[in-house]
Amino acid sequence: MEIIECIPNFSEGRDSETIRAIVEAIAASGVVVADHSSDPDHHRMVVTFLGTPDDVLQAALAGAREAVRRIDLTRHAGQHPRIGAVDVIPLVPQGSSSIDLCTRISRELGSRLAEELGLPVYLYEESAARPERQNLAMVRAGGFEALRSGRLIHERAPDFGPDRVHPTAGAVAVGARYPLIAFNVLLRSDDLEVARRIACSIRERDGGLLGVKALGLRLESRGCVQVAINVTRPDEVPLYRVFELVKIEAARHGVTVSGSELIGAFRMADALEVARHYLGLHDLAPTQVLDPWLAQWTEPPRQE
Amino acid sequence: MEIIECIPNFSEGRDSETIRAIVEAIAASGVVVADHSSDPDHHRMVVTFLGTPDDVLQAALAGAREAVRRIDLTRHAGQHPRIGAVDVIPLVPQGSSSIDLCTRISRELGSRLAEELGLPVYLYEESAARPERQNLAMVRAGGFEALRSGRLIHERAPDFGPDRVHPTAGAVAVGARYPLIAFNVLLRSDDLEVARRIACSIRERDGGLLGVKALGLRLESRGCVQVAINVTRPDEVPLYRVFELVKIEAARHGVTVSGSELIGAFRMADALEVARHYLGLHDLAPTQVLDPWLAQWTEPPRQE
Repeated sequence: MEIIECIPNFSEGRDSETIRAIVEAIAASGVVVADHSSDPDHHRMVVTFLGTPDDVLQAALAGAREAVRRIDLTRHAGQHPRIGAVDVIPLVPQGSSSIDLCTRISRELGSRLAEELGLPVYLYEESAARPERQNLAMVRAGGFEALRSGRLIHERAPDFGPDRVHPTAGAVAVGARYPLIAFNVLLRSDDLEVARRIACSIRERDGGLLGVKALGLRLESRGCVQVAINVTRPDEVPLYRVFELVKIEAARHGVTVSGSELIGAFRMADALEVARHYLGLHDLAPTQVLDPWLAQWTEPPRQE
Repeated sequence: MEIIECIPNFSEGRDSETIRAIVEAIAASGVVVADHSSDPDHHRMVVTFLGTPDDVLQAALAGAREAVRRIDLTRHAGQHPRIGAVDVIPLVPQGSSSIDLCTRISRELGSRLAEELGLPVYLYEESAARPERQNLAMVRAGGFEALRSGRLIHERAPDFGPDRVHPTAGAVAVGARYPLIAFNVLLRSDDLEVARRIACSIRERDGGLLGVKALGLRLESRGCVQVAINVTRPDEVPLYRVFELVKIEAARHGVTVSGSELIGAFRMADALEVARHYLGLHDLAPTQVLDPWLAQWTEPPRQE
């Protein structure tokens, strides 16, 4: 069946009422909310939901509507780059969906976000209409503050919507993409420079691992720094390799890792590859996990 | 729904025709065969299948019938303790099944195995009618060779069936039990004594980890030894702890681990605990795995 996974990121990681309202608006649209998490230092929340293309479109709109109504970016400061109250809406093919279907839905969603909420919309990654917008970092360069400084024309012209940012909700990036793993490694250090240097050494852009994006960020509320990572080619570059490389680079600075966080969801295959590596379970097959077999007789997991 | 997992072990690990015939007999009974594996050194095969209580009963009988017809224990020698052609048939509650249901089905199965195939049947573990039979190792002590040496009376009297072993198929142990993980760690050594000493140091019986059973075995065909392990309390003693302890004990003998094998299946929860440990993913929730959410829209996994 054609299922789309949608992982919208919103610029609110502190106010529990706003967080709840956004999650509820999404869940009310017939989709399944698998996970949501928020971080007060990033000042950001991430919702992971799944559904049919139509339901996902409605749910993404509902979440965005709530975010535009409630979030004021002019009073927002956080550790994470962002351009909007609803900052980015990735659509990922699942089940029998194709990336083309996700691209089509992303355009439809972009056009509705512009029309109904008055947001400038940038199509990114697989949906990008201009090659330089394939990279989300380019779309977000300078953040909300850069975009609000003038008219959105020429290379800043949105794919849909007005040529000015929404005064409080900014703009939004929407795009189809393949699955990625959002994974943060926490360091026993408050030295931002160390986190940044580790991020540099592991990310593809600076000669690191294929498809790895990374930033060093400070987490004031936890008194430490972290390396915030996207693993965009998890089949070629498994999670354990990224994690071990962070540990090796951290050791060089005399810093240890205190733990890590998965933001959103990953595939069972990603967890199995971790087990294969660390336990030397070279021949472990996905069919050796009981749960998928049992799923045909049991209820789907409960929503939180 | 009331689902039972059944993991019969048969004393044939070499002849591919017999292996195939047993798996096919089981699969033809309406159950789902999740996994099967065989080992020429253990001279043993393990099938993991799932189904409703009625289907599981029929499938276990069908597999046993095929094994009794094809396997001659008088010409069988392998590294693994065994008493029968179909050596042991554990029944594990899954879905909404209870251990009591599995116990009931094990008695019904035991009575049918005795009646239809002429096998002496010993009820073990949760199904045991005598406390000393709770431990499978006690039921199997001395193996087929000990049981065939005389009449099965007094402490050797079976729970069902005749007072003599079946001349070629021996006897069988049947019982309800809770889930366990069957996990073999391979050593870069051909020194059986080292494997045995490691087994001793990790198993509960000799002061090791709760619920861990272990044996040192030689694998002639691979030119190495292994520690064959059952983790019977996987919620209290996760796989990574057992594996790391084997590595530590092996290092003491100057031996390294070359890999490991999962025999049969484990739960997604077991794999996630491995990821939590090695990646420091302290807060990883089962809801963060996509596959169970997607299962409600997709086909169950294919049988091999």
